[in-house]
Amino acid sequence: MKLFDGGKAPNPRRVRVFLAEKGIEVPLVPVDMGAMGHRDAQIAERNPLRRLPVLELDDGTVLTESVAICRYFEELHPQPALFGTGALGRARVEEWQRRMELYFLSSVASAFRHLHPAMKEWEVPQVPEWGEANKPKALDFLKILDAELQNHEFIAGDDYSIADITGMIAVDFMKPARIAVPDELTNVRRWHDSVSARPSAKA
Amino acid sequence: MKLFDGGKAPNPRRVRVFLAEKGIEVPLVPVDMGAMGHRDAQIAERNPLRRLPVLELDDGTVLTESVAICRYFEELHPQPALFGTGALGRARVEEWQRRMELYFLSSVASAFRHLHPAMKEWEVPQVPEWGEANKPKALDFLKILDAELQNHEFIAGDDYSIADITGMIAVDFMKPARIAVPDELTNVRRWHDSVSARPSAKA
Repeated sequence: MKLFDGGKAPNPRRVRVFLAEKGIEVPLVPVDMGAMGHRDAQIAERNPLRRLPVLELDDGTVLTESVAICRYFEELHPQPALFGTGALGRARVEEWQRRMELYFLSSVASAFRHLHPAMKEWEVPQVPEWGEANKPKALDFLKILDAELQNHEFIAGDDYSIADITGMIAVDFMKPARIAVPDELTNVRRWHDSVSARPSAKA
Repeated sequence: MKLFDGGKAPNPRRVRVFLAEKGIEVPLVPVDMGAMGHRDAQIAERNPLRRLPVLELDDGTVLTESVAICRYFEELHPQPALFGTGALGRARVEEWQRRMELYFLSSVASAFRHLHPAMKEWEVPQVPEWGEANKPKALDFLKILDAELQNHEFIAGDDYSIADITGMIAVDFMKPARIAVPDELTNVRRWHDSVSARPSAKA
């Protein structure tokens, strides 16, 4: 088994943090995304979408999409449960994982990809007006998250989950996207400090 | 238990098709999205994101996000399995469900929301340039899907899954988004005809 990894980018990091939380070691094949290595034949023949990460099993089976790779490892190594436990618990993690991804990470990523000069080759065409429109979307979502985190230690309730991984990485991605976490969102700040202090955050 | 439903919109329909495939009946509370009913207090107090569908359990517990609601019912009624079976099967459905959603449905929805005059109040600001940029994104993805469907009856393999539901609804959503399925994508057309002929497609 080997994991084609993409360094600092949010999706490859999601899988590395997930594996660190599970205590699973998978050999990494580093791919230099800065040099567009994810568009080379090595990746294109495994993932027609030319995106990272890509997991390859020993029999050559290929699995792509960060959350799908995480779910594969959750099935093989159920503890600690990072996709929730029980019907409602699993649905609750799915709900928050989706919210973090669709209304937050995607907004931060759109601001970054459509506004940052280094993204010109990646996002064609860059639409700066769309990048700007995403900054208030990300901040509106953070306000809703702050209200929810008043009652819970973690995003989907009392237990750390994949929703916290997506959320932590989205907050970290705000820096290159040039969006600041407002000072008054004290619950978001408390939660982000807490999840960032876990050893997995360095993965 | 009751499901606040939003009629023709893609996400409410995803849950109705899923329930029909499972043979589960849940009382529906119709919400008129055309009259912005999803922004009224009835929904806002249950979902701060003011989106549909919303599931409310008999004890008042609220669950939002179409795929999270589907997963809740999958956990309660595992057969027929619509999220896959086995570790690799479940990961494969997650992979394709994400691909259908992130690279296809979201592109079709962005074209619709940023270009259709009726969406002016929904998508603020509308960015027509971004709407146009999404049309080739949707078509590029469909070409990749067509190649995959040469080898499988359904999107994630030999069995119908939630990825087919998301895909069918995204293809149907191409019509109001004014994007045509190219004639030469014969595998996509064969698959879409087949899933549209299932009784669940009318839900």
